Amino acid sequence: MTRLAEMETLNGGSTLAAPAHGGGIDAARRAFPDAPAPWLDLSTGVYPRAYPLPAFAPEALTRLPDASAFEAAEAAAARAYGAPPGFDVVAGAGAQAFINLLPRVFPARRVATLGFCYAEHAARWRAAGAIVTIAASLEDLAAMDVAIVVNPNNPDGAATAPQNLLRLARRLRARGGLLIVDEAFADFTPERCIEPLLAEEIETAENIVVLRSFGKAYGLAGLRLGFALCAPPRAARLRAAQGPWSVSGPALAVGTQALADADWLAESKNLAAQSARRLDALLAEAGFGLVGGTNLFRLVESVHAARSFARLCAAGILTRRFDERPSWLRFGLPAEPRDFERLSRALGVRIDV
Amino acid sequence: MTRLAEMETLNGGSTLAAPAHGGGIDAARRAFPDAPAPWLDLSTGVYPRAYPLPAFAPEALTRLPDASAFEAAEAAAARAYGAPPGFDVVAGAGAQAFINLLPRVFPARRVATLGFCYAEHAARWRAAGAIVTIAASLEDLAAMDVAIVVNPNNPDGAATAPQNLLRLARRLRARGGLLIVDEAFADFTPERCIEPLLAEEIETAENIVVLRSFGKAYGLAGLRLGFALCAPPRAARLRAAQGPWSVSGPALAVGTQALADADWLAESKNLAAQSARRLDALLAEAGFGLVGGTNLFRLVESVHAARSFARLCAAGILTRRFDERPSWLRFGLPAEPRDFERLSRALGVRIDV
Repeated sequence: MTRLAEMETLNGGSTLAAPAHGGGIDAARRAFPDAPAPWLDLSTGVYPRAYPLPAFAPEALTRLPDASAFEAAEAAAARAYGAPPGFDVVAGAGAQAFINLLPRVFPARRVATLGFCYAEHAARWRAAGAIVTIAASLEDLAAMDVAIVVNPNNPDGAATAPQNLLRLARRLRARGGLLIVDEAFADFTPERCIEPLLAEEIETAENIVVLRSFGKAYGLAGLRLGFALCAPPRAARLRAAQGPWSVSGPALAVGTQALADADWLAESKNLAAQSARRLDALLAEAGFGLVGGTNLFRLVESVHAARSFARLCAAGILTRRFDERPSWLRFGLPAEPRDFERLSRALGVRIDV
Repeated sequence: MTRLAEMETLNGGSTLAAPAHGGGIDAARRAFPDAPAPWLDLSTGVYPRAYPLPAFAPEALTRLPDASAFEAAEAAAARAYGAPPGFDVVAGAGAQAFINLLPRVFPARRVATLGFCYAEHAARWRAAGAIVTIAASLEDLAAMDVAIVVNPNNPDGAATAPQNLLRLARRLRARGGLLIVDEAFADFTPERCIEPLLAEEIETAENIVVLRSFGKAYGLAGLRLGFALCAPPRAARLRAAQGPWSVSGPALAVGTQALADADWLAESKNLAAQSARRLDALLAEAGFGLVGGTNLFRLVESVHAARSFARLCAAGILTRRFDERPSWLRFGLPAEPRDFERLSRALGVRIDV
């Protein structure tokens, strides 16, 4: 493979018709062997300061995780996400595990995502035989068998008011349709989450599945923990499809403790907001136009995006590019002042960090 | 629920038509609240002395596990299991993850297991619409679309010579059939494993999927790590169905190191054999008849099995009972001399431990 062809496959390309993702530092290292190590990975939306690992009993590693370990993590998630009674919580090995499962457990024909979003949704429904389109509005989504809204959206951060999602869910429900709300990046904006609204309208919740990611906001993406929230009959089907021991003992133990720690989340929310503002200033200075984002990643555009991506790779900094939107680049948050300095230098800008 | 009804559901019973399993200490604790704590869990076949956790980079927790982390674990597994070149290895979150996936990725109609075995195989194929029967012999299996052999078998330890499995695979292949060999309990008996034989006959390997469990022999069942070994086209389909980041970073890191540690495995094999002999003597003394087993668990029978199960529960010791075979009890290995003593006392026998 030529250097250029290899670069093309770097997190923008795809193999086996599987979507590309951020996080492919190993491929970047091979394509840019002369880049200074260690690489700075800004290609994902994972919070760069991990939740400090609590101590957990050795049994979390040595024994099969039992029902009480699942129940504890699911109860902590229900409280953290404000899920009302009657809206069940199912733990899985990351939100991705449920994105894999949903088309199999709730098969449907006509599926649409709201706008251009996280590619795995469309890929998994297509693999299951569905016709997947991109809807431009909630109005268009209302005509589907399954409507998928990533909220806030990845990669552009577009936010949909939860009241509007509830209205959409009501319309879908009248036709037997299902609304999937992927709140993988919603931990720092609970006021825009749909779960608390369902307390007043638990019947509508029958046709809603909400996905949550633990690893992103808590900076522990390697643990693999996520949740699906839905009405009990759907939860039972998801549990049965997952089979036993679908989440590791450490993930359940750490998730149970971290999700109960509101102080840490509040502090991280502030730190992430500061980092996002600093990153915006730096990227503006470098000539990028802000498209949008969340406080876990920023999306910018430039006619020189491809060149900037390569230049950053040569400096050992991996960002996220998009085959479908060649002028876009997505940046995760740098963790430390020295990471901001490194990014500034690589982009050739001076900025107070 | 009455005490008796509750006891009935204890790892012999089932909910939602899902098979029952060992490891349900939490349910046992609820059913026997007066049992002395901590419970001694002998209900699984997990080796009771865990592989000592090696240090691993924090990135295993904080970042999404990348392709190189998967490749390292899969390469270590290929070496440890003696998989020949051309027989691919796919890491997953436990052998169970592949038991879930196989009926979906390689759909088939007529499926049989060799004898009474680990219940998840039949349950998952049935859930996918297959007609699942129990075959009494390899001869009967040869007429199936999918033949499943747990080798050595769980729970009775029955061993099938790998040469005979290879012969079965040849016959199945002539008809487009698939052989699944579940070697979840084979780590201490590599001489009976099929992988090394495939070097001489890589074409036949096209119709074989071998499953391996990491957590059992290495005493780290909570980590969730297992492998499927098969020809590259099947491996590609399994990988695509699993989706990205299907195994946690810690599981990949620990597995990579542990699977390369032949000394630890050799020592554990000896210790497990000693424990199994000691356990056999104790159970014989208590009046049980040995049915079979592996060096990770022993299966015994008695007309008083149900009473013994309850008596052991009352003493805070959980074993594995089987609804389908009420005279059977399966015992995992006690770890320590004091665990042997506790078991002896609970069974009312005196034995030198």
